[in-house]
Amino acid sequence: MLGSHALVRSLVDAGVDVCFMNPGTSEMHFVDALDAIPEMRGVLALFEGVATGAADGYARITGRPAAVLLHLGPGLGNGLANLHNARRAKTPVVCIVGAHATHHEHYDAPLQSDIMTVAHNVSAWVKTSGHPRDVAADAVDAVAAARRAPGSVSTLVLPADVSWNEGASTAAPRAVPAPDVVGTEVIDAVAALLHRDETTMLMLGGVALHERALRAASRIAAATGVKLLAETFPARLERGVGVPAVDRLGYLAEQAEHQLSGVQNLVLVGARWPVSFFAYPGKKSDLVPEGAHVETLADGSHDVTRALEDLAAAVAAGVEPVLQALALPEEPAGELTVQTLAAALAVTIPEDAIVVDEANTSGFMIPSATAGSPRHDVLTLTGGAIGQGMPVATGAAVAAPDRAVINVQADGSALYTIQSLWTQAREQLNVTTVLVNNGAYAILRMELQRVGAATPGPRAMDMLDLSRPDMNFTEISRGLGVPAVRVSTAEALVAELRRALAEPGPHLIEAMVPPIV
Amino acid sequence: MLGSHALVRSLVDAGVDVCFMNPGTSEMHFVDALDAIPEMRGVLALFEGVATGAADGYARITGRPAAVLLHLGPGLGNGLANLHNARRAKTPVVCIVGAHATHHEHYDAPLQSDIMTVAHNVSAWVKTSGHPRDVAADAVDAVAAARRAPGSVSTLVLPADVSWNEGASTAAPRAVPAPDVVGTEVIDAVAALLHRDETTMLMLGGVALHERALRAASRIAAATGVKLLAETFPARLERGVGVPAVDRLGYLAEQAEHQLSGVQNLVLVGARWPVSFFAYPGKKSDLVPEGAHVETLADGSHDVTRALEDLAAAVAAGVEPVLQALALPEEPAGELTVQTLAAALAVTIPEDAIVVDEANTSGFMIPSATAGSPRHDVLTLTGGAIGQGMPVATGAAVAAPDRAVINVQADGSALYTIQSLWTQAREQLNVTTVLVNNGAYAILRMELQRVGAATPGPRAMDMLDLSRPDMNFTEISRGLGVPAVRVSTAEALVAELRRALAEPGPHLIEAMVPPIV
Repeated sequence: MLGSHALVRSLVDAGVDVCFMNPGTSEMHFVDALDAIPEMRGVLALFEGVATGAADGYARITGRPAAVLLHLGPGLGNGLANLHNARRAKTPVVCIVGAHATHHEHYDAPLQSDIMTVAHNVSAWVKTSGHPRDVAADAVDAVAAARRAPGSVSTLVLPADVSWNEGASTAAPRAVPAPDVVGTEVIDAVAALLHRDETTMLMLGGVALHERALRAASRIAAATGVKLLAETFPARLERGVGVPAVDRLGYLAEQAEHQLSGVQNLVLVGARWPVSFFAYPGKKSDLVPEGAHVETLADGSHDVTRALEDLAAAVAAGVEPVLQALALPEEPAGELTVQTLAAALAVTIPEDAIVVDEANTSGFMIPSATAGSPRHDVLTLTGGAIGQGMPVATGAAVAAPDRAVINVQADGSALYTIQSLWTQAREQLNVTTVLVNNGAYAILRMELQRVGAATPGPRAMDMLDLSRPDMNFTEISRGLGVPAVRVSTAEALVAELRRALAEPGPHLIEAMVPPIV
Repeated sequence: MLGSHALVRSLVDAGVDVCFMNPGTSEMHFVDALDAIPEMRGVLALFEGVATGAADGYARITGRPAAVLLHLGPGLGNGLANLHNARRAKTPVVCIVGAHATHHEHYDAPLQSDIMTVAHNVSAWVKTSGHPRDVAADAVDAVAAARRAPGSVSTLVLPADVSWNEGASTAAPRAVPAPDVVGTEVIDAVAALLHRDETTMLMLGGVALHERALRAASRIAAATGVKLLAETFPARLERGVGVPAVDRLGYLAEQAEHQLSGVQNLVLVGARWPVSFFAYPGKKSDLVPEGAHVETLADGSHDVTRALEDLAAAVAAGVEPVLQALALPEEPAGELTVQTLAAALAVTIPEDAIVVDEANTSGFMIPSATAGSPRHDVLTLTGGAIGQGMPVATGAAVAAPDRAVINVQADGSALYTIQSLWTQAREQLNVTTVLVNNGAYAILRMELQRVGAATPGPRAMDMLDLSRPDMNFTEISRGLGVPAVRVSTAEALVAELRRALAEPGPHLIEAMVPPIV
C-alpha cells in the first residue's frame, strides 16, 4: 500500500475525515489519495492561515480534530499564527507538513529549511515520519496526542517519498485516554471554601463554558452566592436563551481589576490564572487582587464538567440553575455605531447560531447586547493573533452545515486571512460576515495611548490608519466570489442580516462604523 | 534616552532608514519614535508577509537592508515565508520582533510563545535585547551581521519595556567586513581549467549576475569558449540591451539536465551546486552530469565580481564582452496566451525597469521574449515560497521611486500577499502588476503528473483548481485602492501596459490567460 493511502485511510478510521489544505508539489500524493479514499473531504484554502484557522473552528464545534495539509517550512510559517490561536484555544489539530523526499533533503534545495524549529513553536507533539511502514502508526499517534485533554496541535512531518512509496499498511485508531477525574478531597476543599463567609469567584474556562458545565456552575452560584466569571477569550462559550449567563473577564486590565476587586477566593475551573493581555508601564501583569487565595478545582487535563457536577452535588443538591430568558434590545435605527451594530446582531441572531467574534474595538458592546438572544455559541480570538475570525467561521460552517455562522469581523484583522471568503464560496458555506469597516487599527490607537505615548505624532498615527486609501470590502468580497453589500445605517444592517441569513451560502455585509478612538 | 529612540536613531545612523511594519501593542513605542526620528520612514503593511517581502525587494535594489517590525511569534510566523525567500536570496534584512515586556513574559499571556524557535528557521543572527542600555548596540550588530557577505536575515527580539524605558544611548555603526578576496592560486587553477580542451561552464549566481560581473564573465566566455549559465532563480539579474545575456538553468530537471549535458567542468561563481527543485520518484536530485568536475571560483562570502575580473584579466586581456543588442518581438495581437503575454511585456518594458517575475507556469516564455528588451533588472522567487512577487515589487518601488516596476504575477501566488496592493496605493508606488489569471494552480497540475500520479481523479484535481468561484482580481484590486482593468487580448494588454507605465502610482492589469496544463 502507498504511504499516502495508508495515511489518509488511517486518519479517516481515527475520525479525522476533513482536511483543510494548501498543498504543493511534495504533497501531491496526499492530494491524489483523495480519490482513492473518498471518506476524506479535502477543503482547499488559498492561504495556509485559512486552513489552520478553519481546522481550529471545525474542532471547536465538533470536538474532533481536522487535518491540515501544508507545504514545507514556509507553508507551516504561513499557518503558524492560527495554529498559535488553536494552541491557546486548546483545540485538537492534526497538522501534516509535507517535506522534501528523504534522499533530497541534504541537497538543500530552495524550499529546504528546518521545519522542526517552526513546528515546536505551536505543537505539543512533533514527529517526522521516516518510512512508509511507519506513517499510519505515526498518524494515529498524532491524532491521539492531539485529542488528549485538553487538546493540542500535533505536527507530523511527511517526506514526499514516504507518501509515494509502497510498503505501508493502515493502523487502527489509538484509544484517547480519558481526562483525569478530580478527586473528592479537592471537591471537598473547594466546597468548604464556598461555605466560608468570604467573597469567592469561580473563574470558568475551556469546557466549563459549555452548557452542561455552566448549568452545574449556575446551581453552585445559586446555592452558595459564589460569583461566576468566564475567561476573557473563550474557545467556545455557549450562551443565550436557556443557558446560564456568565460575564467574561474584561480585555482591558482596568476593567478586569474592577471585576475582580474584592474577591478573596478565586477558584480556577478549566481557566488560567488571570493576567493582563499585555504589559503596560507601571501596571501590574497579575490581575488577582493582592492577598486573594487562588485554588484550582480543575485544569484542562481534568474532566472539568464532572468536577463542577460533583461540586454541585456537594453544595447545591436540589438547587436549579438560573437560565437566561429571551431579552432583546429594541430594533436599532439610525446611525451605525458600536451600539447599534451590537443591537442589530442581538435582534437577528437565529436559534443555534455560531457567532465568531473578531470585531475587536467595534465589538465591545456585543456580549452585553446579545446576552438574551436565542441560544448561540460564541467563538473568540484565543491567542491574540489577529486574522482568526474568518478562518474559524469557515471551519465552523464546515463542521455544522445546518447552523447559521455569523462572523463579526474587524477590518484590520480581516485583511490577514481575507482569502477565507473564497473557500466559503467554493464550499457554499452558510457564513454571514459582518465586516466592520472603521478605517483604522482602532485598538492600536487605544493601545498607543495606554502604553504611555500620550501625544502621538502624525507619523505614528499614520501607521495605525487604514484610510488613504479607504478599503472597499464589498469589492474585495465580490472579487473572491462572495456576494456583498455595504450598509451605513442600523436598519439596513438588520435588513441585510435577515436577508443573508435566510439565503443559503456565504454573504458579506460591510458595516461602515466610525472608530471608537 | 528611551530604548526605542536609541534603537531607531542607531538604525538610521547605520544606513537603515526604511522600516516595513505591521506593528501591535508591544511595538507602539517603536512606532511612536517615528515622529522623534523623521529620518526613519515607516511603511505600513497590512500583513506581515508583505513587510518581509518588501524588505527583501528593497535590499535587492539598494544593496542595503531595510528594517521590518513584527508583532511577537505569530507576527514573525506570518512573515516567515518571505524571510525564507530572503534567506535564499541572501538578502540582508534586519527583522525586529516586538515581544512582551521582560517582566510579563513568565505570565504566559495569550500572545506568549517561544519566538526563538521560529526566528532560528530563517536567521543567521538572533538576539533578544535584554535592557535599554544594550538595544542600540544590538541593533548595529544586527545590521552588520545582515550585511556581511553574502547577506542574511538578522532577527532582534525587542521586549516592550526595552523600548519604553529610559537608560539607552545610541551606538555608532559597525564596520561591515569586506568580502574575502579569492586567492591567486584559485584564479590560476580555474584559468588552467578554462584552457583545457574540455567543455566547461561557469554557473553564475548572486552578484555574479550584476552587470559588472556579467561583463567580466562575457569576456571570459568570448576568450575561452566557456559556456555561461545563470542560476534558476536569481535574486537580481541585470539584463537587456547593453548587458551580456545569460540563460538561466531550467526549473524542470529535464530541462536543466539538457542544459548541463556534456559539461565536463562546472565552475561555480556565487552560485550553488545545481540540484533539482523537488525530488521526483526515480529521478536524480543532483543535476551535475555524471563524472563532471565541479570547482568553486567564488561563493557568496567572496568578492565575486573581483574574482571574475581577476579571472578575465588572466584569460581574456583585451577581449571585449558581448553585449545584448535591442531585439524586440513583433507587437503581439490576438488571443492572450503565454506567448503573447511574454511578447507584450517585451515590447513595453521601459529602460531601467525592474521586472518582478512570479508568473510561474504563465511566465515560461518571458525570459526568452524579453532578452533583447531595454535594460532591466529581473527579481525572481528565490526560495520557492509563493507570494513573494507583490511584496518584492512593493519594496523595489520604495527603493527606486524613479524606476518603473512591473510585477508579472500568477493568480494562485498573488493570493498569499494580495494586501501588498494597499501599501502600493498608500505609498503611491510606481508598480504595474500584470495579474495573470488562469484560474488554476497550473504548476501543481503539472507537478501532480510529474510525481507519478498519471491519472489524477476529480477530487484531486479540485484541489488544484481556482475556479468555482472564478476570482476577479480587478474587483479585489479596486477594493484595495489600486485602479485595475481586465484584458483578454494581446493588443489590450500592450495598450494597458503603456497607459499604466505612463501614469504615476500603482496599477493592476488582470490578464486572462488559459492555463498551460
